[in-house]
Amino acid sequence: MDTIDKLTEIFKEFPGIGERQARRFVYFLMSKNGSYVDNLLLLVKDLKNEIAQCPECFRFFISKDKSLPAGRQVCDICLNQHIDSAILMIVEKDSDLESIQKSRAYHGKYFVLGGLVPIVEKNTKTRVRVNELIGKIKKEEKGLKEIILAFSLNPQGDHTDLYIRNELQNITENFEIKISSLGRGLSTGTELEYSDNDTIKNALKNRQ
Amino acid sequence: MDTIDKLTEIFKEFPGIGERQARRFVYFLMSKNGSYVDNLLLLVKDLKNEIAQCPECFRFFISKDKSLPAGRQVCDICLNQHIDSAILMIVEKDSDLESIQKSRAYHGKYFVLGGLVPIVEKNTKTRVRVNELIGKIKKEEKGLKEIILAFSLNPQGDHTDLYIRNELQNITENFEIKISSLGRGLSTGTELEYSDNDTIKNALKNRQ
Amino acid sequence: MDTIDKLTEIFKEFPGIGERQARRFVYFLMSKNGSYVDNLLLLVKDLKNEIAQCPECFRFFISKDKSLPAGRQVCDICLNQHIDSAILMIVEKDSDLESIQKSRAYHGKYFVLGGLVPIVEKNTKTRVRVNELIGKIKKEEKGLKEIILAFSLNPQGDHTDLYIRNELQNITENFEIKISSLGRGLSTGTELEYSDNDTIKNALKNRQ
Amino acid sequence: MDTIDKLTEIFKEFPGIGERQARRFVYFLMSKNGSYVDNLLLLVKDLKNEIAQCPECFRFFISKDKSLPAGRQVCDICLNQHIDSAILMIVEKDSDLESIQKSRAYHGKYFVLGGLVPIVEKNTKTRVRVNELIGKIKKEEKGLKEIILAFSLNPQGDHTDLYIRNELQNITENFEIKISSLGRGLSTGTELEYSDNDTIKNALKNRQ
Repeated sequence: MDTIDKLTEIFKEFPGIGERQARRFVYFLMSKNGSYVDNLLLLVKDLKNEIAQCPECFRFFISKDKSLPAGRQVCDICLNQHIDSAILMIVEKDSDLESIQKSRAYHGKYFVLGGLVPIVEKNTKTRVRVNELIGKIKKEEKGLKEIILAFSLNPQGDHTDLYIRNELQNITENFEIKISSLGRGLSTGTELEYSDNDTIKNALKNRQ
Repeated sequence: MDTIDKLTEIFKEFPGIGERQARRFVYFLMSKNGSYVDNLLLLVKDLKNEIAQCPECFRFFISKDKSLPAGRQVCDICLNQHIDSAILMIVEKDSDLESIQKSRAYHGKYFVLGGLVPIVEKNTKTRVRVNELIGKIKKEEKGLKEIILAFSLNPQGDHTDLYIRNELQNITENFEIKISSLGRGLSTGTELEYSDNDTIKNALKNRQ
Repeated sequence: MDTIDKLTEIFKEFPGIGERQARRFVYFLMSKNGSYVDNLLLLVKDLKNEIAQCPECFRFFISKDKSLPAGRQVCDICLNQHIDSAILMIVEKDSDLESIQKSRAYHGKYFVLGGLVPIVEKNTKTRVRVNELIGKIKKEEKGLKEIILAFSLNPQGDHTDLYIRNELQNITENFEIKISSLGRGLSTGTELEYSDNDTIKNALKNRQ
Repeated sequence: MDTIDKLTEIFKEFPGIGERQARRFVYFLMSKNGSYVDNLLLLVKDLKNEIAQCPECFRFFISKDKSLPAGRQVCDICLNQHIDSAILMIVEKDSDLESIQKSRAYHGKYFVLGGLVPIVEKNTKTRVRVNELIGKIKKEEKGLKEIILAFSLNPQGDHTDLYIRNELQNITENFEIKISSLGRGLSTGTELEYSDNDTIKNALKNRQ
């Protein structure tokens, strides 16, 4: 394997990229002048140096503060004094969190679970951050009034919703924390004529 | 224009069919043997003879009863003793009604409005059956407890929802009829990462 | 099965139409006024009465002449004095012939084979009109200088090309008729970067 | 603009990548562990150091030889003793050359023009390597028997074909070099029924 093949393998791991496009990326880089490639290298190196994972919500973020080790720095959302610390939203991954932030519809705290729970899975606790989540809730106990489960609407998302509700049952009952899931029904652009039965059922049940 | 061209024009009006496929339909009919075409002719003729529009809900249906004129026959849903006559769902068109029937999630009455109300429109009442709807509600008055507005989730559907709520305001207040709209939120298959802001807002507002 | 179901089954046989769209066609007809449906019925009936299969080229066509029985009437292409009767193009089906006529690039005779020869097939002669083709060539013998095989470029088309060449070998050698196939190479819009190996091979072999 | 935004801008220049996917690439890199990112950095740096542009054919290639400056090293295709130096194929860009190499249908020399000639363009010679091409042909003069123009089949490709034929007219006549273009006709998967007029015309003209 030469450098072209090796770099193709690396680009194949990029989200949504297959063998063919990965190879095109390599030829693209070969055809660009040195300053573009230098800029790419510099920015990836910067990203690597600036990145930190928040010990509160577990999202990745760009840290400007160099006084603390990466694992000890809290992200800008968790540090924000204006967010509503009575609500905690649990999401699967960073890009879901970004999507919700962009909607400007939510102003509470987040927790990134780090994955969905597969329907057949034995070692769940090593795959998703359930223990970390329970630790976080215990720590927040006093102020926390509601936990929102915000998973994609597919079988694995549904399974994860059930799993987390089950794992949190004791703690939410003890601390009197309400647990809710994102509402279901018609989403933007839904045409009734082409809707599946489940969406119609949910839209009817949740009519208002 | 010969018969091929004329029939192409007719097929072009079929839902989702363009010039090219319309012409293919004609060549398809030319290549089929006589019995297929005879069967098509017979069934379209049957459909034409058996079709009736229900004077209660305004849906089209296949009438088996020949003792009454077509406009006087009530459809099988409206005649059904087991449906819940306390709820009336207002839909845009027959295919929406079919989609909801198929979900088996709703067991009340229907009313087919005959269209959505365009956002800029002067002669609304001649375009959709608002007067017939008010007449229907007055007639049902005693038993009716809830009206469900079930329109597709797009600007014209939203506009129609507002328009109908406004038109029905007096009558629903007088008769103490609740008026609701289909619930909004995540629909089957929704991935949070790719959700638009409105869907996220609705899913959050309607969490439960 | 009521009339709606039966007509759905009929429309499902239309080219490119599935269950769902077939049913939409039925509801569409139910919602159209009587004159549209009457017009459809009339035109399909006209089509059925006017259609004839040319005994020379086997294409279907609209016959205006009522003096002869349908099976005896020759189509307008075969009757045309200006076509070049030294060339005979063999196509799979009527819509291929239409596509070639539309290009105005060919001015010879046609023969519609009635299908492609499946790669595994025993009773080929009952499936495609090989015997009729040989009869046609014998009849044309004096004037015929070239036969063009014009099949789609896929495995079944290639197989049919080979099969017909083999079946016609004796007759074309005896009558000194040249046999050719449509040229291969880059087609409109082809981008080299995304071309398959066979297309590149053909484009290179047929460079000029 | 922080590092995330800057790197998004860089990834947006990758072929076929829009704003949204560019941003996903950045989040993807943030979520990967250090060794993946280090490997990416290392390989891009390797690529940058190993890359050379062949002074003979102008393609980019990975150079293993460090004894010569990058601009002086000849690529493995041009160095190959087994290629047929009597034929020179002119392509638009490196990825077209890769596609032709992969087909194993061509065993001659290449020349990468560096672009297509826009239909309206004044300073053509500064945009594509016409002068370098003429220089190359003069140098090869003795052995060169044929030049193949291998451009994509679209208006700009056609225009470039004409332009290059015109520019090379004198030199090819003087040196008795044949000039040809890739063959046109049906490409793999072409269905006659859906073919455009030009493809049918070419397929007929180039029948064999």
